[in-house]
Amino acid sequence: MIAGKWKPLILYFLLQGPNRYGALKRAVRCVSDKVLIQQLKELESDGVVLRTDHKEVPPRVDYTLTPLGRSLAEALEPLCIWGVENMDAVARVLADREAWKQGPSG
Amino acid sequence: MIAGKWKPLILYFLLQGPNRYGALKRAVRCVSDKVLIQQLKELESDGVVLRTDHKEVPPRVDYTLTPLGRSLAEALEPLCIWGVENMDAVARVLADREAWKQGPSG
Repeated sequence: MIAGKWKPLILYFLLQGPNRYGALKRAVRCVSDKVLIQQLKELESDGVVLRTDHKEVPPRVDYTLTPLGRSLAEALEPLCIWGVENMDAVARVLADREAWKQGPSG
Repeated sequence: MIAGKWKPLILYFLLQGPNRYGALKRAVRCVSDKVLIQQLKELESDGVVLRTDHKEVPPRVDYTLTPLGRSLAEALEPLCIWGVENMDAVARVLADREAWKQGPSG
């Protein structure tokens, strides 16, 4: 349900309150429209996120967490905080892996 | 660092204390030796798990969390508990997805 590079972050930001697509896109930096829309659709079909179209002109659509989504986001929050607090250690691990893949010539 | 079907569970059980390979295999049910050994190796090379060979006869090897691993496991624990508490909801989501993939004939 949270497989997908951006889903934990999407849930983390939606925990802060209902969010318009544009605000989510700015919060979850470096994600493409195509991927963000796809992952929001998956979260919606999994019953984790609710998409509300307010039928206004100009169009107003926002995303909120369902009760299941809220409980999942709250369970994920410590992990997101851990990721921020240990960003250097994680970056070092990923760099070591990359160097290891390249082999001696790398 | 926790990508991999069994890694969160491995960390969750290692949080309970140092563990021999056999105990881990029993705790993390349904995992093959090949996969469990591979994921333990990855966790070890990522500096999350420490493998200690006590150089005894018969051989005694156990796995413990490094400080980085412990902090990660503690951050993951709420998510593991969420998974257990919401197992039915997650099973329903996965079943819906499966049915959706099969299409009308499914």
